[in-house]
Order: sequence, then C-alpha cells, then structure tokens
Amino acid sequence: MISIVLLGTGNVAKHLFNAFLRVDEINVLQVIGRNEGHLAYFKDKVETGTDFTKITDADIYIIAVSDDAIAQVAPFLKKKKGLVAHTSGSVALKSLGDLNHRGVFYPLQTFSEGKSIDFKKVPICIEGEDKSDMNLLKILAGLISLEVHEITSEQRKSLHLAAVFVNNFTNYLFTIGHDICTEHNLPFSMLKPLIKETVNKLDYLAPLDAQTGPAKRNDVKTIESHLNQLKNKNYQDIYSLLSKLIGEKYGQKL
Amino acid sequence: MISIVLLGTGNVAKHLFNAFLRVDEINVLQVIGRNEGHLAYFKDKVETGTDFTKITDADIYIIAVSDDAIAQVAPFLKKKKGLVAHTSGSVALKSLGDLNHRGVFYPLQTFSEGKSIDFKKVPICIEGEDKSDMNLLKILAGLISLEVHEITSEQRKSLHLAAVFVNNFTNYLFTIGHDICTEHNLPFSMLKPLIKETVNKLDYLAPLDAQTGPAKRNDVKTIESHLNQLKNKNYQDIYSLLSKLIGEKYGQKL
Repeated sequence: MISIVLLGTGNVAKHLFNAFLRVDEINVLQVIGRNEGHLAYFKDKVETGTDFTKITDADIYIIAVSDDAIAQVAPFLKKKKGLVAHTSGSVALKSLGDLNHRGVFYPLQTFSEGKSIDFKKVPICIEGEDKSDMNLLKILAGLISLEVHEITSEQRKSLHLAAVFVNNFTNYLFTIGHDICTEHNLPFSMLKPLIKETVNKLDYLAPLDAQTGPAKRNDVKTIESHLNQLKNKNYQDIYSLLSKLIGEKYGQKL
Repeated sequence: MISIVLLGTGNVAKHLFNAFLRVDEINVLQVIGRNEGHLAYFKDKVETGTDFTKITDADIYIIAVSDDAIAQVAPFLKKKKGLVAHTSGSVALKSLGDLNHRGVFYPLQTFSEGKSIDFKKVPICIEGEDKSDMNLLKILAGLISLEVHEITSEQRKSLHLAAVFVNNFTNYLFTIGHDICTEHNLPFSMLKPLIKETVNKLDYLAPLDAQTGPAKRNDVKTIESHLNQLKNKNYQDIYSLLSKLIGEKYGQKL
C-alpha cells in the first residue's frame, strides 16, 4: 500500500486523484489546497485542508500546482521523510529545492474539467535521484498507467515543448478551421472525420510521410487562391508561413 | 442500379472505386486513365482503358483527377447524356465547361495509398444544377456515406481551405513534434495519447474553449524558455507567430 498526500486542486490534481482512488494499493490520505472552494470537489472522499503546515505524513507527496507555485509549496515538505514529486512538464527536479527525497511524476496529457481520461494510456514520465525513489515512482505510476517512462529533466522539457506544438498549436488550427466553417454556414462537425483520420494515419505513417496538400506539391495557384479567400490577416500570416516551411521541407521553393 | 464510369487512377479514384464496389446498387462499368501502369490496380475487377475517346455510356461519370487535369478530361464527355461530376474541393462546378449535366461529388477526407477508410463517415459534398441531377448525386452519395451535404462551390472552397489548416498544417505540427522527440531520444509514440485526446476533446468542447498552454495564459517565462530550446529557426518562427496570435485571441498582449 502506498500512501499519498496531494497538494493542489486543479485539473491535474483532480484527474490524478480519481486515478488513485480506483486503485486498492493506493491510499490518498489528504488533499491540501489554498482555496477552500476548490477543495469542495474532494471533501466527501478524503480529508482536506488549506493549511500547508498541517500536512499528514505519507509515502509520496504529489505537488500538482501551477509551475510558479511549486517552489512555494515545496518548502512546507522540507522535514518530511517521504518522496516529494511535482507533476510539471517544464520545471526541473532541482527546483523543488532542499528536500529529503525529490522526484517528478509528469502525466503527459491534456486534462479538462469534467472530461474523464483513460489513465492506463497516459504516459507517466518519472524522474528520481536514487534507485529506491525511482522504484517507488515506478510502482505508483505502474498502478495507474501502462505507459511508464524514466526520462531526464531535459527530455521532459523537450516533451513539453513538443506537446505545445501537437496540442496547443494544433488546437488553435482547429479554431481557425471552426472560424472558416462558421463564416460560411458550414458545421464544424464536417471537418471531424478528416481531423480524426489525420491522427489515425499516425499509426501507419510518420507525419513526415503523411504530409499532403498544396504547399507540399508546390501548387502555387491553390495557395494564392486560399490566401485571397482568407480575410483575417492573422490567418493569412499563418497560412503563408506554414506553406513556406512545408515547401522548404519537401524541397520546393515557394 | 446506378452505372458509373470513373476517370482517374489516383488515391481518390481508388478509394471511391472500393466504396462503390461494396454496394450492390452501384455498377462501375469502366475505369479510364492516361497511365497504363496506374490502371493495373483496377484491371482484374473492371474494364479499363487509356483512351478517353472510348468512354462507355453511364449514368454518372466521376472525374477523380488532379485539379489541373479536370478541364482536360471534361471535354471528352461533351456528348454524353449522363451526369459528369468532379471530386475536387477547390475547382468550381462551372470549370467542367459545356456539358449536358454537371455536378460535384467531393469526399472531404484525406486518402492515402493502402490505408482503408470507413466511407460511411466521410462527408460527401454534392453540388448540381437542377433537381434531378442533385437527386442522382444524393442517391449515389447516400449509398456509400451517411454524411451527405448539399453545398455551394463557394462553401466547398472554404471547406477545402479549412481542411488545409486542420489536416495539412496540423500534420506539419506533428512533424515538428516528431523532430523534437527524435532529437532528444524520445519515441514519438509518447505524444500520441495527447494528440488523440486533443482531437477527442472536440466532441465535448469547441476548439476555442479547449485551448490551453503557455500562450493562452500569457506565461512569458515558459514561452521564452521554449524559444531558447528550439534550435531550428523555422520552428522558432512558427512558435512565435502562433503564440502571438493565440495570445491576441485570448486577450493577452505578448
């Protein structure tokens, strides 16, 4: 049995909490957060508190707060014997400061309010400073996910950067697609099969080999026609830049 | 029973051919293409030919060739009584020139060699010039797909433009994610659950509401750190532009 205290009340904390609850071998002792209101979600299932000086002893303390707040929360755990791990993609392990046992427990996924996640498929990226800490993190991660990866702080930063491209920026392109549809009285749902297939293809082809479209085949006529259709200057800028770079990547000069 | 002649031998032609073959009510009489070699795929299942002056009479002639070649193929069908429809997202109906019956039969999907598609979910966008042509297209589309949409040439052009953003450009962002992973000895497969969830979220949230990340929350520190991590100047340019525009969209000044 692994005992856990969860520090934080945001989306990552909620999703981890639910994943932990489902596993008999994990015992969540306490959830601590600054905001009384945000603790309501956890209240009927576990002991909660707003006082960081009253953290219960546990095997692992999971700090699931915003990046900037990690360094503020960590000092409260200075005297604890257990392992302290944060869940951030971009904060270095050493940013936890002076602690007995430090680690990282980074679930590489996008978590939204009210949208449940199959944690078994979420890659959990772990980092620790010695073998026993690594083992403990590996056991905890393995209890909720089938995808456990030991990676360095440097690799984690790169993953987080890659995630911005494939999640944040991709979602923004979907927003542009949505805008274009709305402007022309078309339901955005018409694009969904295409979007899903774009992603499904990744199981068969590397994205470099899956590339299609006017930019790749240097179809200047279509590119110009598309730029003329776009009234939004920002969308034109994105179209131009991405088309130029795709063209360069595939050896075309635009 | 609807009889069909298919003009063209590319990915769209192949995928449509397979979808038509599965339906008893559709009879593909002939496939015509310039390139003898490309006809090999069809040869044991249907009559094929390279001579566009020897096109069999049919109810519908589907022109599934590259955009530029549509105007070259259409004149061969000038004297035909059946309906001639092209499959392009960006070519206007009238580009088919002077024909007895003109239409558009645009499957909004990305088709790859050797990767089968569930056509039932592919939106087929149809356009015709009179009621009986529209009806015929609607019946044909309805036999292979559950998603049949009557749209104008103008709307189709916009859909095609939106498709470039959500498919071509999105795939390019995946390529960047792939590059970053490779550079840091991480398997690209680690990003796939995130990519899939990014898309699954669209069934619950509009992309405008699903946006997350450093650009949206004006996290200048993370943005700067990411720009420093990127050694590829092109990727920096994309990161900067997309972050700026996401920031503007959500009311932050970067």
